[in-house]
Parts: sequence; C-alpha cells; structure tokens
Amino acid sequence: MLAEVGAYGVNFHDNDLVPIDATPAERDRIVRDFKNALKATGIVVPMATTNLFGDPVFKDGAFTSNDPKVRAYALQKTMQAIDLGVELDAKIYVFWGGREGAETDAGKNPLEAMKRMREAMNFLCEYVREQGYNLKFALEAKPNEPRGDIYLATTGHMLAFIATLDHPEMVGVNPEVAHEHMAGLNFLHNVAQAWDAGKLFHIDLNDQNFARYDQDFRFGSHNFKQAFFLVKFLEDVGYAGPRHFDAHAYRSEDVAGVKDFATGCMRTYLILKEKAAQFNADKEIQALLAEINAEVPEMTPLLGKYSTQKAAALKTHTFDREIIAKRGLKYERLDQLVFELLMGVR
Amino acid sequence: MLAEVGAYGVNFHDNDLVPIDATPAERDRIVRDFKNALKATGIVVPMATTNLFGDPVFKDGAFTSNDPKVRAYALQKTMQAIDLGVELDAKIYVFWGGREGAETDAGKNPLEAMKRMREAMNFLCEYVREQGYNLKFALEAKPNEPRGDIYLATTGHMLAFIATLDHPEMVGVNPEVAHEHMAGLNFLHNVAQAWDAGKLFHIDLNDQNFARYDQDFRFGSHNFKQAFFLVKFLEDVGYAGPRHFDAHAYRSEDVAGVKDFATGCMRTYLILKEKAAQFNADKEIQALLAEINAEVPEMTPLLGKYSTQKAAALKTHTFDREIIAKRGLKYERLDQLVFELLMGVR
Amino acid sequence: MLAEVGAYGVNFHDNDLVPIDATPAERDRIVRDFKNALKATGIVVPMATTNLFGDPVFKDGAFTSNDPKVRAYALQKTMQAIDLGVELDAKIYVFWGGREGAETDAGKNPLEAMKRMREAMNFLCEYVREQGYNLKFALEAKPNEPRGDIYLATTGHMLAFIATLDHPEMVGVNPEVAHEHMAGLNFLHNVAQAWDAGKLFHIDLNDQNFARYDQDFRFGSHNFKQAFFLVKFLEDVGYAGPRHFDAHAYRSEDVAGVKDFATGCMRTYLILKEKAAQFNADKEIQALLAEINAEVPEMTPLLGKYSTQKAAALKTHTFDREIIAKRGLKYERLDQLVFELLMGVR
Amino acid sequence: MLAEVGAYGVNFHDNDLVPIDATPAERDRIVRDFKNALKATGIVVPMATTNLFGDPVFKDGAFTSNDPKVRAYALQKTMQAIDLGVELDAKIYVFWGGREGAETDAGKNPLEAMKRMREAMNFLCEYVREQGYNLKFALEAKPNEPRGDIYLATTGHMLAFIATLDHPEMVGVNPEVAHEHMAGLNFLHNVAQAWDAGKLFHIDLNDQNFARYDQDFRFGSHNFKQAFFLVKFLEDVGYAGPRHFDAHAYRSEDVAGVKDFATGCMRTYLILKEKAAQFNADKEIQALLAEINAEVPEMTPLLGKYSTQKAAALKTHTFDREIIAKRGLKYERLDQLVFELLMGVR
Repeated sequence: MLAEVGAYGVNFHDNDLVPIDATPAERDRIVRDFKNALKATGIVVPMATTNLFGDPVFKDGAFTSNDPKVRAYALQKTMQAIDLGVELDAKIYVFWGGREGAETDAGKNPLEAMKRMREAMNFLCEYVREQGYNLKFALEAKPNEPRGDIYLATTGHMLAFIATLDHPEMVGVNPEVAHEHMAGLNFLHNVAQAWDAGKLFHIDLNDQNFARYDQDFRFGSHNFKQAFFLVKFLEDVGYAGPRHFDAHAYRSEDVAGVKDFATGCMRTYLILKEKAAQFNADKEIQALLAEINAEVPEMTPLLGKYSTQKAAALKTHTFDREIIAKRGLKYERLDQLVFELLMGVR
Repeated sequence: MLAEVGAYGVNFHDNDLVPIDATPAERDRIVRDFKNALKATGIVVPMATTNLFGDPVFKDGAFTSNDPKVRAYALQKTMQAIDLGVELDAKIYVFWGGREGAETDAGKNPLEAMKRMREAMNFLCEYVREQGYNLKFALEAKPNEPRGDIYLATTGHMLAFIATLDHPEMVGVNPEVAHEHMAGLNFLHNVAQAWDAGKLFHIDLNDQNFARYDQDFRFGSHNFKQAFFLVKFLEDVGYAGPRHFDAHAYRSEDVAGVKDFATGCMRTYLILKEKAAQFNADKEIQALLAEINAEVPEMTPLLGKYSTQKAAALKTHTFDREIIAKRGLKYERLDQLVFELLMGVR
Repeated sequence: MLAEVGAYGVNFHDNDLVPIDATPAERDRIVRDFKNALKATGIVVPMATTNLFGDPVFKDGAFTSNDPKVRAYALQKTMQAIDLGVELDAKIYVFWGGREGAETDAGKNPLEAMKRMREAMNFLCEYVREQGYNLKFALEAKPNEPRGDIYLATTGHMLAFIATLDHPEMVGVNPEVAHEHMAGLNFLHNVAQAWDAGKLFHIDLNDQNFARYDQDFRFGSHNFKQAFFLVKFLEDVGYAGPRHFDAHAYRSEDVAGVKDFATGCMRTYLILKEKAAQFNADKEIQALLAEINAEVPEMTPLLGKYSTQKAAALKTHTFDREIIAKRGLKYERLDQLVFELLMGVR
Repeated sequence: MLAEVGAYGVNFHDNDLVPIDATPAERDRIVRDFKNALKATGIVVPMATTNLFGDPVFKDGAFTSNDPKVRAYALQKTMQAIDLGVELDAKIYVFWGGREGAETDAGKNPLEAMKRMREAMNFLCEYVREQGYNLKFALEAKPNEPRGDIYLATTGHMLAFIATLDHPEMVGVNPEVAHEHMAGLNFLHNVAQAWDAGKLFHIDLNDQNFARYDQDFRFGSHNFKQAFFLVKFLEDVGYAGPRHFDAHAYRSEDVAGVKDFATGCMRTYLILKEKAAQFNADKEIQALLAEINAEVPEMTPLLGKYSTQKAAALKTHTFDREIIAKRGLKYERLDQLVFELLMGVR
C-alpha cells in the first residue's frame, strides 16, 4: 500500500517486523521475505528503531530502569535491532525512550537516570563503531505519556544531553511536531536549534494541538501556519534527510481513509513547499523582509566579534533610545501577507 | 525590609537601582548610597542582571532584535550593568531575554536569532575576561510571555546553546520553577540535568500551575510535592549557590502581607529541608529505596563501559522477559509514604 | 482612525472614556464630545462595559470581593456605566470579571462567591428593567489571569450560571476566542452551545495559541482552520450580532502597524467568509457531507422522541455491530479537502 | 480484593461484567454469580454505566455518531445496561461519552451533535420514568482524548446542557478531577458550581497534572493542596454521595502494588478529612477567616436583593476608593498557614 500511495520509504520498530519471541530461523525467514518485498516495490528503509516501551518488561523504562536486568536486556535487544537495521540498509537509528521516565520522583533519582542513559548511549556508539557500521543515532524527545514525565523532555534537552556523550558527532536528534506541541513549544524553533547545531538527522512530521495527549494527526491538519514555516525552513536550509510522516489516520477511517490520510500528508507537504517558493518570490514580501532586516552601516563596526576597541567605542556611543523605539517593525503587515498567500488570495 | 524578614541577599535589574535616564553623577550617588545601605544591613548582592525587556526600545528583543541599533545598545547597557554588578560584588550575572522572541516567524529567522544571541554572549564573555572580572553568566529560559514565543524556551535549550559558545565554562543556567511549569515540564528534571552538566549556577524559586501565564507565586504555594523533591535534591547534592525567591506577593496584599509572603518563602524552604532530612532518615522508606534500586550482581559485568567481551556476553545472555516483567516496583507504596511524611502523619 | 480603517463600531470600558475620577461636569463634557465624534464618523457603540479590574480597589474582585464596600462600589460603578452605555445607544452590556477569582481557595468560599455573583447580576437586571432600558447582558468567561483562577471559567460555566438567575432571558454570553484557547478548548463548540441555548449575544474575535497567557492576537493569525470553521458557523446560522475584534497589535508596531492589524482582522474575516461560501458550493465536499450524514430510513422510526413502542422495538432490534463498525467515515478525505480549499488550490 | 482493602462499593461498565457478545443465558448466569459475590462480601453497586467507547462500532461516537444505526444501537445498549444496573441496585447511572466528539469540525455539525445528545438523554430519561426506576443520571465531562475534542468539554458545559433537557431534575453531573485538570481548570470551582446547582450526584476522585493526557493517578498523589480543599468542601457541605476512586495504579506495580494504590486513595482521603477538621478548629486560621470575611454593617442595607431605594442609595453613596484599596486581604498569611497545617508543623 505504501508503494501504491507513492511513499519513498518505510520505518519500523524491530518487533513490527520480527515478533519479540521469534526464533533465529523465523527471524531470518521474515527478514529475507521483507528484503524481497523492498526490492520488488523500490521502497527503502532509511531509518530503524527498537521498541523499548511496549512489552511489560519495560514498564519502568529500558536504559533507565531501576532493574539492572532490564537495562542489560534493553542493550541486547537494541544491538540485535541495530544489526537488523544495518542489514536492511538503514542509515539512521532512532531512539525514543517512551518509558524512560517516572510518575513519581520518589523512587528514581533523575541524576542516576541520566547517568544510565549516557552509559547506554556510549555503549551503543562503541558497538556501532566496532562493527564498522555506517549508522548515526537520532534521539527523539517527548515530555510525557505514557510516563507521567519522560526524561530529556524536549529536543533542547536532547541536544544538551548529546553534548555530554563520548561520541557526540555520531548522535543527533529526531524532533517530532506532536511531541513539542504537547509542551506548547514552537516546533520550528526546536528544529532551527537542531539545525544550528548540525544535529537535525531525522524529522517526524505530524500535527496536533498544544498541551494535549499525543494526537499524531495528519501532517498540517491542525496548525497550517506552523506547518508552512516548518516546510519553508526545511526547504530553505536544504535539509536532505528523510521527511518521515509519523502519524496515523483518525480512528474513524477504513482502508480507503487510511490511504486518504497517507496521500494527504504528502500532498500537504508539497502544497506548502510550493507556497514557500511563492513566499520567496513575492516582491512585496521580500521588500518588507529586506526593510525589516536591513543592516545599519553605522552599527556594523560596533557589532560582531569582540575587540577592545569595539567595546570602548560601544561604551561611549550615544544612542537615542526614544527615537530607536519609535520604529515600527511591520510584522502585522508581513504576517497578514503570509495569511493571504497561504489562503491563495494573493 | 529584607533585613527585617531575614533575607540574606538582594538582586535587581540595573534600572531598579539606577534609572535608565540617570546622569553619571546621579548614578554614582545612587550607587554610593546603596553600598552604604548594604553595609548597614549586612545584605549582599550575589547576583546582578540587566533589564533588557521593559523599555520600548526592546520591543523586538535586545540581542536578537532585527534592528542593529538595538543590538548595539543592548550590549552597551549590559556592559555598564556588568560594571555596576561587579562594583556591588555580584558573582553571578543573570540573562533573561524577555523579549528575545517573536509573535510570528515571518519576520525573524530563528537561525539568525540564535547566531545573534551567540555573538552577544561571546562578546560579553570576552568583555568580562578582559576586565578580569570574577563573574559567571547564568542564562534563564522562559517559553513565552511577553513574546508569543521566546527563543531557547527551556533550561534544556539553554544548556544546548551554551555548548555552542566560545567560553562555555563561564556560562551556566538559572532555572526558574514558574518558567518550566509554563511548559508543563518537571522542574526537578531540568535542575538535575543542569547539575549533571555542572551548570547550575543560580536558581529562581517560586511556584505556579502548569500551562498558565507567568504566575510567580510564593515558593511551594501550589505544588507541595514538586517543591519537596526540589529542596531535597538541592540539599542532597550540596548546591551551594543562592536560593533566590523570584516571586511576588498576591496583589491582594498590603505591606504586612508582603512580609508574610517573604517569610513564607523562607519558612517553606526550611520546612521542606527538614522533611528531606526526615525522608533520608526514615527506615521504611530507605529500606524500600534500597530494594527498588538494588544492584543484581549477575548483571554487573554486563553493564557499564563498553568492551567487545561485554557486547558478546550480552548478545548471548538469555533473559526471561516474562519473569523480569513480573517484578513490582513499589512506587505506589513509596509515593504514598512521601505523602504521609509530608503531611506529618508518620 | 477606526473610521479610516473601515470599522463599524467601537466598544470601551467606562473609564476608557470617562476617567475614574472625573467630576460630573467633566463626565458630561466628555460624553457630549464623544457623541459628536460618533455622529461625525458614523461609528456606533453597539456594546458597553465596566472596568471592574484595573483599579487597586478591585484587587480581590468586584462583585465577589470579600470586602462588602467593594461589592457595593462595584454595583454603583456599574449602574453609572450602564446609564452611560444606554446614553450612547449600546444594546449589549458585557461583563468580564477579570478579578472575580482567587489565588488560593483558603480565603474565599467558591459557593459564597457564586452567590454574590448571582446577587449582583439579579440586582443589575432589576435595575435595567426598572429603568426601562433596552439592554441585554453578555457574560464573558476567562479561566485565569490576572487571578490565579477566575470563577465561571469557560463559556459553558457561564451558560450554566445564567440558568440560575432570576431573569435568564436578559442574560447571554460573550465568548472570546483567546479565553477558551487558554483552557485548550475548541472555541467553535463553545459558540455552538451558546447558539443552541439562544445565548450568543456578542462575540470577541481574536486568536492565540492554546494553554498560554492571554495573547489577544489578530483574528485568524494563529489558527487558520479554527477561524475558518468559526466564521462558517456564524455565517451559516445567521448570527446577527456584532463581530467584535477584541485584539491588539503586536507590541512591535507603530501607528501604521496598528492600522495594518485592524484592517487585517477585517480582511481575514471576509476572506474566510468567502471560503465558507466556497465550501458550501463545492460539489465534491457537499457530496461527501451528504454521504457522511445520510439518514438510514430503517432507523428513523427507532430514533427521536421517546415512546413505549419505540423502546420496545429498539430493545428487540438486531444490530450487526461488526458490519456497522466497518464503515469508513471519510473524515480524512473531507479534512484534506478543507485544507486544500483554504490554501486556494481547489 | 476490594473487600480486602476495605472498599465500600464497586462500579463497572456493562461489558466489564457481561461480555458484549454474551447470550441472554450467559448474561443471566454471570449476573446471578456476581450478586452472590456482592452478598458474600457486603460490597454494594452504587453506580452503573455503559461502555459506549471501546468497541469499534463507536469510533465516531455513540449518541452523536453520524451513523443512525450507531445512535440506535447505543440507545439499545444503554437501556439494557440500565436494566442491569437497576437489577444490581444502582442508584446513579453515569454517562461518559468518550467518543462523542470529533478530530475535525468538517464532518460533524456541533449543533447537530448537541441536538442528538439531547434527544438521547430525553429518550433515556423517559425510559427510566416509564419503568418506574429509582435512578438518576450523572453526566461526566472530559475535554479530549480519545477524540481530538469531546463535546460538552467541562462540568460547566454539562451543567448548561442539563438545563436544556426535558427532565433536568433527573440529571446531574459526575465531575472527575483528572478531566478538569486536563483543561487546567480549578476542580473545586467546578464541584462548587455543581453543588450550588444541586447537581453533584457523583464524583470521581483521582489526580493528575494540568494540561496533560488523562493520567488517572492515585487520589491526592500530585496536587496535595487542591485535594485538601476538595475534601474540605465535600465534608463541609455534607456531600452524601459516593466518593468514587476512578484511578489506576502506576503500570510499574504488581498485585501488592495495586493494593497499596487502593488503600493509598482511601488513606489520603481520610488524612485530608482530618486536616479539614483541624483547619476548622484552628483558632488563628478561623480568626483570620472571620476578619477577612467580616460584614460591614454600613454596607448591609446597600447589598442583597434589588429595591428602588437601594439603587438610589447606592448611586449617591460616596466611596473612598483609595482608602478601601489600601486594605490588605491577608491571603498570603492564610495560605502559608494552610501549608504549615498540611505539613503537620502547626
């Protein structure tokens, strides 16, 4: 069906393909059949991941569980799933620690949890390096659900955590629209920070309202404007990674409705990509942007990299605060033009 | 009044002390009088900061403003305020960029904003180093208000940003309870991540409900349990920095009520500190914690730092997933004991 | 300026026009001048209201204050403002009790607060009736800010409260987009319930993100889809009351930007009204809607008003649950068509 | 187990007891066995309800489904479940319409949905009356999850809806802590409004953080202060209905942990009930409350029921706004005493 609706790739958790209780022989047969299906349809597997949340064994987390047996089992399961992913030619390995959290801070020390998470990531990085795998990791944040609180709650927390790893160069992030919206955060700002840090390895596109349960709606279905700015950003900076629609159809749908959903995600992306090109070509909008962001030659020598002279010049410069404050920034005009461009009435 | 209620220190924005339009002579007189008052009361100034949000000149931000004059003026104002802070013996300089954000992403590129923010921080770090000041920076995050969205929305985002600076060792964070609660995040987890990274330079204690406007209520007034775990953490790890009550009395209060508010903040902290000691001394609770967090000797050689042998051993180890999953983690029992301890009925 | 941008009417709090400390003579002169200005511009005053939140006297509320002097003063101020509103030909009187709430439930009994609120509303209804004024009341809900919690938090709570008044027929609601979004509620559903109850006397149009401080952004600026369904509803049911843009320009704007903001509100409404007409005329969309909402003749005798026979027939009817469940409801298809219609690509 | 932990009653959805596919004979056997178990343990069934959300047939709602067959089937299922509830001696019948909502307003008219909901309620009220059942209905609101938005989102909306029914006297509400917290609302204020309207027929006690997925945690586990004010209210007004703990243990628990959870709910309620008695007996707190709520004799003739004389007297009374505003309301002091009383340090 994915081929039918025009999808480029497919991702899955290890146990979506190979049941958690499969014997090695069953595992090999399933993988062989699946590789044949990939070949037949031309679909690729750009990303793989481990299900470390569904089975009751992970009820208190995987890498951060208080039970050392669970932590060890999670490592084993992930190494096997990494092997599987590489066999299927995945280049990105996503970690979403759905149960790495707590309902009460009474029983689990968040410092200890972070230490355990780091140990696991360092371990798995070394494993990948030793195997010579061409694989990068992408960490996916979520603030809560199914745990009361999940550690490393947003893309920002993940980026900060990565900076504390042994091999930060191997590890990036996989921001998901719905997850940042749960915390009421501006998703674009999260993506921009990840891009700025060179860490945007993968992205999960879907949609949902702020401060809600994990809704995972069709990409662009609820917040048109945010979706537009996101697509514009990805296209403008030249993001070359997968655009992964990690959403699901409304429960009200039958099979035809699920196809409508899948084609809807892709159509919406392409429509917004076209709108982004229109924004970049719109003379009035571009003139406004040029005016809003204009450099002031007099200021140029005062800004930028520090120097003793610059600091001294800055300290003695006379600014007329009231005159500077009078300038209107024309964001209302510009924002209204965005609305009208998106509505197709420009 | 601060001395009267027993406060240890006072912090302020530059313009709380010296009006934005003061002449150098006025500035010097005000500072002299203030230093005398500090001497007389024994109150210290552990932290200083710049007001980069109140004046209309900052309506589009300070360091991230689209107007280069504003960016330059913000640097000037901050250098002067740093000089003032150092003169008053402040050791920590807090940055809260209340207007470093946007209502619409149409007019301001978040990548450009982050670049400007980094440039400003790098500039000011160099300034401090060149002056030989003994001063560290602490960045304070807030997700929104008064801007539609504020850049670097949480403590996590700030920690990640710091890792991209020229002198990350000079820069830490100043997490504020209310600001993380606005995004519905677990504040303790933010503080723990900052501590883990060696970046907890300062902390702003207050309280408020989740997903609300910036309420800044009395510390511990709304979320007793979170406040308890926070105090316990700060005491357990030996946090030695200021405990800054950045809150304000309900608008319903007169001067006596403001004193009630200020003493309330401090009493609450001390009561919770006593409860934390009680938690650490409670035999039943400690026995439960020991059981919950028990090491499993058989697992010890499989966990920790990576080695080829460890990976091989892990891969062949047989885990009985169903038996491991059966273990109850006793968090309900423990959490109920916390409730009863806090209620004073144990 | 309102006339210049093409506005139809203007609303204000009593003290926006007449300062709270004006003498009767000043009051009369100001009102006379204002009436002349209205005549000159053709602008009308469809709605009036009292400011019962700005002055420190209202710090603990107006009608629900614990201080009987404040409650009495609030009645006096409102009677005077009602007189003023009627003099200016207002037909709707809005009540927004910005400080009718609490930060702690320790000091104010919510039952008592509700009783006081009811007493005040009943009092003012009788006052209006006795004066023979042609005036209706519209109650405006808000969940919090500037109080920790505000009583009667949503339009639903207000509708329920109205049903307990002495003259419910005189009292309706004034839902505001931003206020319901603060509680993360679907604004259209609130408006529909008010309409269903015959209580949609007035409406405040603006926009903002969910679970945030009171942002009061330009109508339609943030949630295009919700704004579309709202406009469609108001037009479809034939709402004849004022469409009041209770928003304000981003702080970044100068006077020209404020005009951009005001014309933006109106243009957006009209663009969405045109889109609603297009939705109603779109053959594919209408065919889908007809299919989705089709009646099933066999079911008609089983539904509707109760009768003994109907209940008996229903109890013995055989439903094939699994077959019924198989039907797809085509919401994904329909919702995607809405996106494409709004984007102007149909 | 319920008897073992000391529970008073048990509630269930129809299909928790009788499988949705049971034959009449199976149904009768199951019910007979269950009645014997009730007799043996002394446990009663104070409330019954229908599961109108789990089966795929209800994917687009039950009473508000766009499919007339589903609406008819929902009526049939509910009549049968009502018969079952009455047979087990239930006095309250709860309606929670978990799927009465929408993900998009494109396909379902909220006015039509409300009309259908009203028709169903009126139908079922008549059914109960005709059977001569001694049964009242209690409507339970929830803002969203598992639907994108659920109609009649809060207890306030339900109360307003009830006022539009044919037999409002038969219908009340069943507020649930977690559901109002999802919308960030003050639960006590909702309960107080229901009580004020004589509509508090049942209550669901649990706990969770604001603006989150439906967490259903142990009563009092997260918001101690709100739980305290709630218990105090229920005890002070003499609420005589069931105190239903509609929560579930953390997933981390085994059977012993589930018992800890169940006894925890009850212990917490009783501890808070004791604290409420202590609050009512505390001389300092009561003196503060008397002062805060003191009547002002001079004001008494100006307040209360409307009269022409009262309005005239009010209009000419001179209020000294500035003096009145100076009064401090002592909420900080009182609120701090509440904290200390709850902590057991008074």
